[in-house]
Amino acid sequence: MRPSGRAPDAMRPVIIETGIVRHAEGSAMIRVGGTEVLCTASVEQRVPPFLRGKGSGWVTAEYGMLPRATHSRGQREASKGKQSGRTQEIQRLIGRSLRAVTDLRAMGEICITIDCDVINADGGTRCASITGAWVALRLALGGLVRNRVIRTLPLNGQIAAVSCGLTDAGAVLDLDYVEDSAAQADTNFVLTRTGGIVEIQGTAEATPFTEDQFMTLFGLARNGVQMLFSAQDEAVAAAESQTR
Amino acid sequence: MRPSGRAPDAMRPVIIETGIVRHAEGSAMIRVGGTEVLCTASVEQRVPPFLRGKGSGWVTAEYGMLPRATHSRGQREASKGKQSGRTQEIQRLIGRSLRAVTDLRAMGEICITIDCDVINADGGTRCASITGAWVALRLALGGLVRNRVIRTLPLNGQIAAVSCGLTDAGAVLDLDYVEDSAAQADTNFVLTRTGGIVEIQGTAEATPFTEDQFMTLFGLARNGVQMLFSAQDEAVAAAESQTR
Amino acid sequence: MRPSGRAPDAMRPVIIETGIVRHAEGSAMIRVGGTEVLCTASVEQRVPPFLRGKGSGWVTAEYGMLPRATHSRGQREASKGKQSGRTQEIQRLIGRSLRAVTDLRAMGEICITIDCDVINADGGTRCASITGAWVALRLALGGLVRNRVIRTLPLNGQIAAVSCGLTDAGAVLDLDYVEDSAAQADTNFVLTRTGGIVEIQGTAEATPFTEDQFMTLFGLARNGVQMLFSAQDEAVAAAESQTR
Amino acid sequence: MRPSGRAPDAMRPVIIETGIVRHAEGSAMIRVGGTEVLCTASVEQRVPPFLRGKGSGWVTAEYGMLPRATHSRGQREASKGKQSGRTQEIQRLIGRSLRAVTDLRAMGEICITIDCDVINADGGTRCASITGAWVALRLALGGLVRNRVIRTLPLNGQIAAVSCGLTDAGAVLDLDYVEDSAAQADTNFVLTRTGGIVEIQGTAEATPFTEDQFMTLFGLARNGVQMLFSAQDEAVAAAESQTR
Amino acid sequence: MRPSGRAPDAMRPVIIETGIVRHAEGSAMIRVGGTEVLCTASVEQRVPPFLRGKGSGWVTAEYGMLPRATHSRGQREASKGKQSGRTQEIQRLIGRSLRAVTDLRAMGEICITIDCDVINADGGTRCASITGAWVALRLALGGLVRNRVIRTLPLNGQIAAVSCGLTDAGAVLDLDYVEDSAAQADTNFVLTRTGGIVEIQGTAEATPFTEDQFMTLFGLARNGVQMLFSAQDEAVAAAESQTR
Amino acid sequence: MRPSGRAPDAMRPVIIETGIVRHAEGSAMIRVGGTEVLCTASVEQRVPPFLRGKGSGWVTAEYGMLPRATHSRGQREASKGKQSGRTQEIQRLIGRSLRAVTDLRAMGEICITIDCDVINADGGTRCASITGAWVALRLALGGLVRNRVIRTLPLNGQIAAVSCGLTDAGAVLDLDYVEDSAAQADTNFVLTRTGGIVEIQGTAEATPFTEDQFMTLFGLARNGVQMLFSAQDEAVAAAESQTR
Repeated sequence: MRPSGRAPDAMRPVIIETGIVRHAEGSAMIRVGGTEVLCTASVEQRVPPFLRGKGSGWVTAEYGMLPRATHSRGQREASKGKQSGRTQEIQRLIGRSLRAVTDLRAMGEICITIDCDVINADGGTRCASITGAWVALRLALGGLVRNRVIRTLPLNGQIAAVSCGLTDAGAVLDLDYVEDSAAQADTNFVLTRTGGIVEIQGTAEATPFTEDQFMTLFGLARNGVQMLFSAQDEAVAAAESQTR
Repeated sequence: MRPSGRAPDAMRPVIIETGIVRHAEGSAMIRVGGTEVLCTASVEQRVPPFLRGKGSGWVTAEYGMLPRATHSRGQREASKGKQSGRTQEIQRLIGRSLRAVTDLRAMGEICITIDCDVINADGGTRCASITGAWVALRLALGGLVRNRVIRTLPLNGQIAAVSCGLTDAGAVLDLDYVEDSAAQADTNFVLTRTGGIVEIQGTAEATPFTEDQFMTLFGLARNGVQMLFSAQDEAVAAAESQTR
Repeated sequence: MRPSGRAPDAMRPVIIETGIVRHAEGSAMIRVGGTEVLCTASVEQRVPPFLRGKGSGWVTAEYGMLPRATHSRGQREASKGKQSGRTQEIQRLIGRSLRAVTDLRAMGEICITIDCDVINADGGTRCASITGAWVALRLALGGLVRNRVIRTLPLNGQIAAVSCGLTDAGAVLDLDYVEDSAAQADTNFVLTRTGGIVEIQGTAEATPFTEDQFMTLFGLARNGVQMLFSAQDEAVAAAESQTR
Repeated sequence: MRPSGRAPDAMRPVIIETGIVRHAEGSAMIRVGGTEVLCTASVEQRVPPFLRGKGSGWVTAEYGMLPRATHSRGQREASKGKQSGRTQEIQRLIGRSLRAVTDLRAMGEICITIDCDVINADGGTRCASITGAWVALRLALGGLVRNRVIRTLPLNGQIAAVSCGLTDAGAVLDLDYVEDSAAQADTNFVLTRTGGIVEIQGTAEATPFTEDQFMTLFGLARNGVQMLFSAQDEAVAAAESQTR
Repeated sequence: MRPSGRAPDAMRPVIIETGIVRHAEGSAMIRVGGTEVLCTASVEQRVPPFLRGKGSGWVTAEYGMLPRATHSRGQREASKGKQSGRTQEIQRLIGRSLRAVTDLRAMGEICITIDCDVINADGGTRCASITGAWVALRLALGGLVRNRVIRTLPLNGQIAAVSCGLTDAGAVLDLDYVEDSAAQADTNFVLTRTGGIVEIQGTAEATPFTEDQFMTLFGLARNGVQMLFSAQDEAVAAAESQTR
Repeated sequence: MRPSGRAPDAMRPVIIETGIVRHAEGSAMIRVGGTEVLCTASVEQRVPPFLRGKGSGWVTAEYGMLPRATHSRGQREASKGKQSGRTQEIQRLIGRSLRAVTDLRAMGEICITIDCDVINADGGTRCASITGAWVALRLALGGLVRNRVIRTLPLNGQIAAVSCGLTDAGAVLDLDYVEDSAAQADTNFVLTRTGGIVEIQGTAEATPFTEDQFMTLFGLARNGVQMLFSAQDEAVAAAESQTR
């Protein structure tokens, strides 16, 4: 039995709200159960030095947690003077995942920076960030098309992410904080709508796991992301209907 | 005529919502027009080194802006590796203002850290932070009383803050970003409900101003904060009614 | 009765000596009682990036305390690896105050950096810094006129600063360290010779203060700065008579 | 055809030499083709703060690249003043992988720090680091047993790591730098001798990949690590025969 | 002919003034020609961690240059966020030199920190710092004896330092900035009054030099320091006569 | 009697191996007894800003210790976020010494960076670094001549370095760690093959030493470096014979 009473293959409720950050070219507040992440996409007509003059665009991401997103307050990274290894690992993952479905050459020399800031943390913040980030990116790119900066959406796919794990209740989908901190194995899947794999991360906490266990977790993730794709679709449709 | 069409002595609409950050002992999302700040209060049973064993509590504050709170994206302070002078100045002001109305000795050896994170910036973020921070602090202290950690609310007063300035439309109350960036003088007032002065900051941008002008701005502020006190009262009342 | 035996409206003795730092385009050592600050003005033919090509000059300031300026040795900020919030707040104030009386456009694309380094601290270091900084700036600008880099002095006014506070001896002028550390309220006024206000900072330490109290402090400051203006005049006159 | 002419399922030659770093409680220089990593294990009788007094040990890792391990010289992280996100990601992976097969409670309050420093980089440095790190850890733990600090080896398993990828030559084992920089997908597998999964990381570079492709890569890895286990066995046997 | 017209074996005028920094337990402003360094000694009843409980004292030093001590303004190390290699090298030299003549065990568990801050730089700042630092240290130790914290002066000797170099005018004593920046070789000697060597640093700039040349420079230094010892004696005598 | 049983004027065995770092334009692993340093030379067609467009080249050096080169593990400087004063002092010494025998103008606008990384430390790491660095530099310059980037070797001399010290066994050559940590005086000599002095550093640890003692140490060094020059010659000859 899961602590939350959910079925092993049950996602938490998902809500994606757009437009909350008014200056951003795209923004999405995603809530997956008690986890809440604010994702913004910022467009700049200027790529990083290594791409200048090469005719290609760039998508990158930064991740942060508000100090009191967690059970006890964490020190603010800005006052510590550096981002933790965990923060850097997550923001590299978000950026890499988005670039895997973006046609960077079709963007032209434009850089889009995605900021994912966690307001409330209850497990799965990196997955919620990726799922919300895709919406923010999609809306910013849609705006560029609308403003005729680019001709067509430079997106090769739609991505969403979910975590699965081996817990005392067996293999389960979409771990919350309580499950996550006691899981024997923790896996994150970033998948495309058409079934492609963008990123797989599987970690044994104290005991190695088997290939069969891994395939079970993979199956849970494949089903789970469908609900995220629907939430993304609704959010994008709602946002785009307002801009028309 | 003000860019927003407001009367010189008109505040922007103010809304304070509580409880958004679930782990925090007190939290308030304050919206003053297009400015939106998330304020949380975190209680720790552990004071900073200089106060240990002295029987006194502490209240301190940290301030941050989400990178895309502003018109163009600003670099994340956590990735820059340091907080700007402006950030430090503001967070020192918030902490100092709250301590001026808190009975630190009556708190016992407890430290409350207020985090003010700006989600949307449209002028007056430091004033909105102070006004919202007081609500978060008040709710956290209320919780300590309810949990019998302390006997009575260790608060000597209620504070709110507003900015006034000299603009092309004359002396005006509650500057938005457009007004703020073109003002000849910019003043911030942190006042108590009973008319006391907690902090006054007045700055001439390009031309010194006169004592008369200053007194006019002061008068606008005195009236303006009343609306903030009402919004604080409502927010506290609503939050406390839910916890009973 | 004040700890120093001074009358409530009495300044400490003020001496401003110029030319101590030989390489600097302008320099002033200011002593206000036991407080001693070395101020230098450095001219560079190169403005900060945000002003390049705009035909305007810039004035900025940096502040530091020698480690043993204070009663017990403070850690050197260079070895700590960062400037404290207090340091940044003060240097921002000094720069802002000087810019308020400088005609930046008339300077041309020249940057003047003022360094204020505290040799001995006995209260009022930020005010002494501003008063001394104006002399260093004035001398550096005078040199630019003499060297025909600019045609006329790009100064719209003369500024000086003084602190006043509410202490056990009532409202007093020009707080020394003992008074400052026990004051109920602490105010700093940066004023022009013609009576204009450049900056007002008033802070309640533990109890809010009233408008009347504030006006009393303001009155003390208005009188107090006159002595500073005279000391500035003498210092500038002495320095300029040597360069002729 | 692979750039190196290797068969798709062929590892590069592997050599593990021990004892090169004389002060270290365990050390291993691992060469996998042109990649060369020096791994040391350092034993301290002192665990990190979060474990003190809990009777449990700790294993952690740090990773670095000598500036000229790569084709063109990279800036030294010590002079840059921070470790890159990539460095932190890799050292977190190494530490996590080793902890998954270590019985931390059986170690007692001892901390073992593994340092992996890359002397020559030709692809697969994180995998070589993990494989070499296990040897260094094994030798250090063996020494603790020999010195009767602990009674039995607190190791639940033997781990090795290898990368596989989708390249123009199809799915291939043990990517070198040329293959790695052009791969469509890059996967790293940390596996135990008994077939358990400790860590899986799969990343699509520009195009998502399929589950079938992933399973092919997984199969290559399963075979490839056998050769690494043999090299580890020989290195440990040789080192231990000398200490007897 | 030297740029200054001095004879090859002529020192610049030396003046040492004491007591300028009022809070410091010892202070000396040393002027060697156009070089001016403010040296303070700060006493703390607390040694660094590696000495705690060992019954021994410590002497350490920090060095800094005010930004405009030099011909063109240098960036403030506190705002750069780190001390340069040159700064660190110099402050290590000062501390090491002082410790070589201090009986650390006789001090008891007391730490004396010497701060050397350069007000005006015209060559030889590290040598002037050492010479002035000894005076500040001597006065602080004298105070500890006077206050009966320690029984006798824990000093085994008196040190002074001077630079010599090979220039277009041959081997010369006490290089000023113009000579220093064009010298073929630059040597610094820290010597005791009784002829002992505390530190020798000799550096060829572009061409190696010979043993004979080195011995000539050494001879110049031996004579030159005598004048520094006299200036130290006078300064100490003057300071001590005031404290009686 | 020396701890190692060596005669006072006996060097430890010296071996210099080249070509270990495959990407570097020059590399040398030098072993002096138990001290082992990996030196690489990296060529870049780009000089530091202060030399751009001046037609001159540059040689600079960086130094590091692998964390477990020493008896107990030291914190990694990259994770500490800064290089120690000792590290900076040593790398400045290495660069300065190499520049003293390099004809920078003859190099053209090329920068060569020498990295010296200590694998095993047993005293004399800075001297071993300089001796090995010269070989790496020599090989890199030889490559530039071979590739016709420059016409002739821009080297004015050959340098090697050795430490001598006053220990309980008297004046001795080439101190190992045990001797170094207990020496009364420690001197480092960087000498050219033709007898020139490039750098002398002599430091009294607790007692000043005499000129006679210094000259004895100097004599030991003069003889000791001969063995280093031979080892350099052999290493260069072996490396160059392979490239032909």
